[in-house]
Amino acid sequence: MRRLTLLDSTLREGEQFSGAFFTHEQRVNIARLLDAVGVPYIEVPSPISSPETTQAIHELCSLNLRSRIIAHVRCVEADVQAALDTPVHGVNLFYGTSNELRSYSHGRPIERIITDSVPLIRKIREAGRYVRFSAEDAFRSDIVDLLMVFDAVVEAGVQRIGLPDSVGIATPRQVERLIRICAERYPDVGIEFHAHNDTGCAIANTIAAFEGGADCLDVTVLGIGERNGIASLSGIISQLYIHYPEQLNEYDLTRLMELDQYVASCLNTAIPFNMPITSAYAFAHKAGVHTKAVLSNPRAYEILDPGDFGLSRSITVGSRITGRYAVGHRAASLGLELNNDEVIRLTQALKERSERGSLSQEEVDTFILNWYQEKGNLIWER
Amino acid sequence: MRRLTLLDSTLREGEQFSGAFFTHEQRVNIARLLDAVGVPYIEVPSPISSPETTQAIHELCSLNLRSRIIAHVRCVEADVQAALDTPVHGVNLFYGTSNELRSYSHGRPIERIITDSVPLIRKIREAGRYVRFSAEDAFRSDIVDLLMVFDAVVEAGVQRIGLPDSVGIATPRQVERLIRICAERYPDVGIEFHAHNDTGCAIANTIAAFEGGADCLDVTVLGIGERNGIASLSGIISQLYIHYPEQLNEYDLTRLMELDQYVASCLNTAIPFNMPITSAYAFAHKAGVHTKAVLSNPRAYEILDPGDFGLSRSITVGSRITGRYAVGHRAASLGLELNNDEVIRLTQALKERSERGSLSQEEVDTFILNWYQEKGNLIWER
Repeated sequence: MRRLTLLDSTLREGEQFSGAFFTHEQRVNIARLLDAVGVPYIEVPSPISSPETTQAIHELCSLNLRSRIIAHVRCVEADVQAALDTPVHGVNLFYGTSNELRSYSHGRPIERIITDSVPLIRKIREAGRYVRFSAEDAFRSDIVDLLMVFDAVVEAGVQRIGLPDSVGIATPRQVERLIRICAERYPDVGIEFHAHNDTGCAIANTIAAFEGGADCLDVTVLGIGERNGIASLSGIISQLYIHYPEQLNEYDLTRLMELDQYVASCLNTAIPFNMPITSAYAFAHKAGVHTKAVLSNPRAYEILDPGDFGLSRSITVGSRITGRYAVGHRAASLGLELNNDEVIRLTQALKERSERGSLSQEEVDTFILNWYQEKGNLIWER
Repeated sequence: MRRLTLLDSTLREGEQFSGAFFTHEQRVNIARLLDAVGVPYIEVPSPISSPETTQAIHELCSLNLRSRIIAHVRCVEADVQAALDTPVHGVNLFYGTSNELRSYSHGRPIERIITDSVPLIRKIREAGRYVRFSAEDAFRSDIVDLLMVFDAVVEAGVQRIGLPDSVGIATPRQVERLIRICAERYPDVGIEFHAHNDTGCAIANTIAAFEGGADCLDVTVLGIGERNGIASLSGIISQLYIHYPEQLNEYDLTRLMELDQYVASCLNTAIPFNMPITSAYAFAHKAGVHTKAVLSNPRAYEILDPGDFGLSRSITVGSRITGRYAVGHRAASLGLELNNDEVIRLTQALKERSERGSLSQEEVDTFILNWYQEKGNLIWER
């Protein structure tokens, strides 16, 4: 089995989300929860960015987590030195290689990218640290430019090259193809992939990268990052759970919800309802056809077992599209014995009531008990 | 150019989202907005479900929208008759074909699925209506079962077959392959695809279906649906905009935000921050490296032009990861003339202040103006 690793960048890319600001305490708590879930790498911002960031990195390193702390650093001597002055496990260098970033960001030619990067890579290796070089905006970069840069940094001794889709433009097929080219050309280094979500394919692209030969996938908690973010940890875990479950042996999936909820609370928001696994409704079933089948066997409409994540499913009973199996099941769990005809009439009554608005579980129970009592009275009146 | 159509199922699949309940007025407003955006098909629930639903369908049909109204109906005589008793353009039949749904949902063998469906398809065609047959849970169905059913319904005269990934298990590659098999086997009928998002790949899978030969893609506004939903309209539009822009010629993209915001307001929630195009931060830039490049040329980090959607970008200035280009730009737009050194010092001061928490645009402006005044005083004091 080829070993896959995940790098969580909530504290770096996630902090670049316009809705995010993490206090010192929150940074520490997030790192501890990532470690509890079992994420192997935690990416942090460049220590050069401020004294507070440097201090936070020192503290994160001193927690002695199993997760390794990696600093995300520009290819600038002072930035690299600042990183090496902290006890981080390694340095993630990055440099834009696309025409767009070369024109509008740093303004430098390919040759300069190489001459800037190579000595810094050697310096980091000489310091005994891990080093990755990432070609920012790899998927809009000319392939000759890209491979010339990778040839040079691999020769200089990087342990991993990174191919970020920095603008969210790639398709799964393109990602798999370009990663495969690199995996075949550079068999002795690791390959990292990082997917922005501007066109909604970050999770699919990230899994396609693994299938093309990448061994390190970038995620953030809830997928937060610049603009509308990158691949979410929960999304990638849901994919691995279904397609590559052996890759999750060393994760504690029961801590995932706590992590997602904690970061959501730091953002003063809820977990988005479209999040795999951890959204409030990920295991909620509503339409009559669905609830009937799920009550018979959850596998009918659930490919992930909520129990594996320490979660449980819910059956939404109080809606106008409810069904008699769900209603009968709820009545039975309230201790009521109803025959088939009664269940059908109760379902009809509940559907009619729910045309004015959905009912909460509590309101459903009250409705069912009232209906039952009234029915008793009607029988008694006869 | 192969013509692609979209079917929006917010009023059917979307209503199956546990957090959704649409009033009569909201159903009408959503349909009007879908029509304004230019979505060709609007799917509604089965009229058999309630008198209120039947009434709503009559009203939606009477709006005379360009969007065609299609009812989503079980393969049951009474259900089909109820649909034909309304003026809907057509009927979307569905029947579970996987072992899981055959065992735990309807309990019927493949032969019965065929004998139930064929006469209903003929009946709908004889009534002069459009009819689609969808094999629910197609991606967990045995391919022999699936093609036997499709052979029969195509022979019976369906105009389109549907392959829903009802449990969100498929990968883009699997979707493209199975759709292509069907497109080659049934060249004279359309092919529809519908992707659940349990493992986060609904958008990628939906685009893979188009690439495999599907001509109709299912979406909902914000991606709402059973569990954590299906492909979002905004997500699919973002994909088409980048990869197949000619397919959007007849859409009014400037109405998309209004539609997403309206449905979010119906759900009493915000548009999820990971939504392509319409999330609050889809065009927000924060890190110094990003804001510098975007202020030079937005293409550096934007592959979608917000102006095409009637939207505008934002630069988040008041954060600890802000950069001097963003700060200098903001100061200039406040009418202040600062030299390079002053911009660097102002940026430093703003970064320090933002270590205690991010500042709103208004707070940033106040901070900059105060800093400028104080600087003036200092000069004056000298």
